[in-house]
Amino acid sequence: MYVKNYRDVQSEPGGADGLTVRWVINASQGATNFAMRVFELEPGKESPFHKHENEHEAFVLAGGGEIETEEETAKLEEGSVIFVPAYVNHRFRNTGLDVLRIIDVIRFPIALP
Amino acid sequence: MYVKNYRDVQSEPGGADGLTVRWVINASQGATNFAMRVFELEPGKESPFHKHENEHEAFVLAGGGEIETEEETAKLEEGSVIFVPAYVNHRFRNTGLDVLRIIDVIRFPIALP
Repeated sequence: MYVKNYRDVQSEPGGADGLTVRWVINASQGATNFAMRVFELEPGKESPFHKHENEHEAFVLAGGGEIETEEETAKLEEGSVIFVPAYVNHRFRNTGLDVLRIIDVIRFPIALP
Repeated sequence: MYVKNYRDVQSEPGGADGLTVRWVINASQGATNFAMRVFELEPGKESPFHKHENEHEAFVLAGGGEIETEEETAKLEEGSVIFVPAYVNHRFRNTGLDVLRIIDVIRFPIALP
């Protein structure tokens, strides 16, 4: 078993301006099927449009923003759960005044943007 | 894409006294690999010892408590991330004064306690 506060996991650049990521559960902890990350996106910033073969499931811990696909835009708030199917182009945007903090779970293997 | 606040998902009995569950992302939303649930455990309550073939990954949203295996007990607080390997007997306990609210992600298929 592995238990740790996410704040004690090293934060790394997340692949976009104003985006950081903590890999809180990964293969290093024994995971074999999916990984859990905590992303933080600064106010006014957005992640690049990207897609991958792996569906992902996310949960908004704090902040406000939106998620955009080629077909729709949905509002995000504390408590929002998000399912993005495989191969759907998507992008996160922070439209609030505080950091947008999101738990994101993604199946192995992970395709980067 | 599917976006919804977890509070708008119906809460159901969670299989133990004082335990409720919301299935926030499941096959109904198009998930094919893993499901996300939000559990709420009342103060003083615990889930039964159980194990299953599917590893799971969890995140404590609110409250305080502990998770117990046959070998160890770890403290839980807001922000704790938890990885439980396959076939490890485990039990959650709320030792605080408020509800213990946990996001729990588990691979399909799901074995119940």
